[in-house]
Amino acid sequence: MKNSLLIPLLAVLSLTTAAQKKILVYQSDFGLKDGAVPAMKGVAMGVSPDLKIFDLTHEIPAYNIWEASYRLQQTAPYWPAGTVFVSVVDPGVGSARKSVVLKTLSGHFFVTPDNGTLTLVAKSLGIAEVREIDETRNRLKGSGKSYTFHGRDVYSYTGARLAAGVISFEQVGPLLPKRVVRIDYQSPVFENGMIRGNIPILDIQYGNVWTNIGDSLLNKLSLRFGDSLSIRVSKSGVTVYEGKLPYVETFSAVPLSEGLCYLNSLLNLSFALNQGSFSEKYKVYSGPEWTVTVKKSK
Amino acid sequence: MKNSLLIPLLAVLSLTTAAQKKILVYQSDFGLKDGAVPAMKGVAMGVSPDLKIFDLTHEIPAYNIWEASYRLQQTAPYWPAGTVFVSVVDPGVGSARKSVVLKTLSGHFFVTPDNGTLTLVAKSLGIAEVREIDETRNRLKGSGKSYTFHGRDVYSYTGARLAAGVISFEQVGPLLPKRVVRIDYQSPVFENGMIRGNIPILDIQYGNVWTNIGDSLLNKLSLRFGDSLSIRVSKSGVTVYEGKLPYVETFSAVPLSEGLCYLNSLLNLSFALNQGSFSEKYKVYSGPEWTVTVKKSK
Amino acid sequence: MKNSLLIPLLAVLSLTTAAQKKILVYQSDFGLKDGAVPAMKGVAMGVSPDLKIFDLTHEIPAYNIWEASYRLQQTAPYWPAGTVFVSVVDPGVGSARKSVVLKTLSGHFFVTPDNGTLTLVAKSLGIAEVREIDETRNRLKGSGKSYTFHGRDVYSYTGARLAAGVISFEQVGPLLPKRVVRIDYQSPVFENGMIRGNIPILDIQYGNVWTNIGDSLLNKLSLRFGDSLSIRVSKSGVTVYEGKLPYVETFSAVPLSEGLCYLNSLLNLSFALNQGSFSEKYKVYSGPEWTVTVKKSK
Repeated sequence: MKNSLLIPLLAVLSLTTAAQKKILVYQSDFGLKDGAVPAMKGVAMGVSPDLKIFDLTHEIPAYNIWEASYRLQQTAPYWPAGTVFVSVVDPGVGSARKSVVLKTLSGHFFVTPDNGTLTLVAKSLGIAEVREIDETRNRLKGSGKSYTFHGRDVYSYTGARLAAGVISFEQVGPLLPKRVVRIDYQSPVFENGMIRGNIPILDIQYGNVWTNIGDSLLNKLSLRFGDSLSIRVSKSGVTVYEGKLPYVETFSAVPLSEGLCYLNSLLNLSFALNQGSFSEKYKVYSGPEWTVTVKKSK
Repeated sequence: MKNSLLIPLLAVLSLTTAAQKKILVYQSDFGLKDGAVPAMKGVAMGVSPDLKIFDLTHEIPAYNIWEASYRLQQTAPYWPAGTVFVSVVDPGVGSARKSVVLKTLSGHFFVTPDNGTLTLVAKSLGIAEVREIDETRNRLKGSGKSYTFHGRDVYSYTGARLAAGVISFEQVGPLLPKRVVRIDYQSPVFENGMIRGNIPILDIQYGNVWTNIGDSLLNKLSLRFGDSLSIRVSKSGVTVYEGKLPYVETFSAVPLSEGLCYLNSLLNLSFALNQGSFSEKYKVYSGPEWTVTVKKSK
Repeated sequence: MKNSLLIPLLAVLSLTTAAQKKILVYQSDFGLKDGAVPAMKGVAMGVSPDLKIFDLTHEIPAYNIWEASYRLQQTAPYWPAGTVFVSVVDPGVGSARKSVVLKTLSGHFFVTPDNGTLTLVAKSLGIAEVREIDETRNRLKGSGKSYTFHGRDVYSYTGARLAAGVISFEQVGPLLPKRVVRIDYQSPVFENGMIRGNIPILDIQYGNVWTNIGDSLLNKLSLRFGDSLSIRVSKSGVTVYEGKLPYVETFSAVPLSEGLCYLNSLLNLSFALNQGSFSEKYKVYSGPEWTVTVKKSK
């Protein structure tokens, strides 16, 4: 008798507390100085006070869709499957870009304008399904007269409802073809003993330069710690930096202010000065137009 | 038997988990670089680890009560009724201003020094009750020797206790008259075919200029998208900008870097450049001393 | 019958909801512009979505271990016992510093490289136990190839598991001797009618200068509000500021822009200008190399 009662009751409790993780992560170029981000979060709390709300970053440089795409790729894999990301970097707000939710093969959800923001997660996590947000159903009530804050009225509202389980993924809106708007960039390739890649981003806090060349591709050069790499960095085809750097395991393997290359925390080849800014010293920045070639130095 | 037991038990559970939203939102001019904000939040967690804690912003310019007032008005309506806001912009800390909690007609609570911070929410959300914080009961234990951090010892502590349901609104302290300290500014008015208003704030991330002229007042000009507005902006009576701008539905309706006016996400008339800073270009800023007049251009 | 069932069931519920506060607080020098902090938090959510996650600050100046130490001391006492702090300011990442968890006598936990970060909390809160993190057990799966982001793979992962109750404190790793790496600085002392101390930090938002001279030591000067103090500030032994300041209860006790000294919110002697920056005006900054002497002025 005791058990016959306890089991269904605990099952209900467990459904309530454990079935959904209810995690919602925001990214934007809004900054943290005004009311945009807290208005988005207020809308989410209005949907469900059980949501767990986090910030990826709100310091994406204004209108920089490429960097928004990079930050999603960099961090999403560290969040549990089921996490809902809302990313609002939207220079074309009000224009023809579609509002979508991408479900990746990894089980993450991305709520965003489809303007290139999904370029990198679509590739690295894989597209399971893409749905267009049906704004006739998924739009904050009373927001119809405003044409400029889709972040709050459509993206945050839809992301919150999806994360809270108020709507299913199917209820987001109609299925779209399995593709997203894509920004062009140099994929990492190995050819004739040389690797070519892109500089997607800087480790801005420290001025380190991160490439998209992963450790498995780098293995083709049969490097050992202490070997040197010949490196050329170009912007839109024009050489900006050319030099040799030792490949090391830790920054402290070289003297203060000296250059080095290493595997960053995403296991991608990166360039740095030990306690200095490689980026500032050599005027090397990042974006889809930056390419890099590396080969083993003789 | 099963039911007779389940019903009261689930009722208890539901009381515990759903009766209160326990949402606490902080605003200040403390910035995020030091220990002030995390000390306030630690005090709240000490009151109840069930609180859901958020930031409105901590980047209010130092001592700028007007902007604190604006941010509350801009965002509070997007949060559920029952949300408790703690706002600490307090140049007169230690002086005679009262420490109060305002309950608005919308059911939101605002815990703050009554120094003008409540100017705009008192008007837009309406005053239900104002209570003075009774510091003999609502002050962090052991904090009596400190005269300078009311934000932590009084406002955060009281806000957390109110949001967590440890005290009722009545237990905050004695009832005050239904008024708050008010900063003077130009209310929006329509006269002789012209609208006069205030520039309460900039959309600082993008350099857009927001007025307090709402869409319903603007309707008196019988505008259509594509019409032009004649605009004059003054600071303390001195003209700073004069010009004509097209009234458009979306930024992309005008060429890059061109000026426009539009309804912002709060449905207030605003001025912008398409992907540029109207504020920087024309040296137009914001505050209670800024006024604007607009009329339909011939 | 009813009671015999209800009591153990509610006991289970209460264990689940109340036994642990599950509070996790992060500090770093990573800033909020990139993916480092959200990756750390994603790892924690993967450990347990029930964690309550907060930021102390991520704006510690790069590599500034002293300031990291100060921020922990300043804020930890305001958080409930059991709170787990993860602090990652780690210029020596990959070098020989140990990764540890300090449990203080106050019942707080600090997960960090033992590089000086624990200097001030070890002194003020007292060392209960220090354990070295056993990375063979307490490291994010699949992170073994990365040598540079211990913050995410070791510190956040271990802190989250400890806060969530997935591991006990004993399961962190082997016990170490009861000491931590310590940065040298001037402890507050009273001698011949004069107090000597350190300037550990600035109240950077306002430019106020905070000493480590507490109210109980200051009492030895038998000060009353309105008395003046003779003050000398030195950096590495060289005098930077010398002057007299009135000791006041509130900033508004002196005219605008005038200097004053007061007890700050930690009850430490501090120097300020009323609505101005003492630090900027007199070029007084902070760190272990800054000392101050104060005596009652005649």
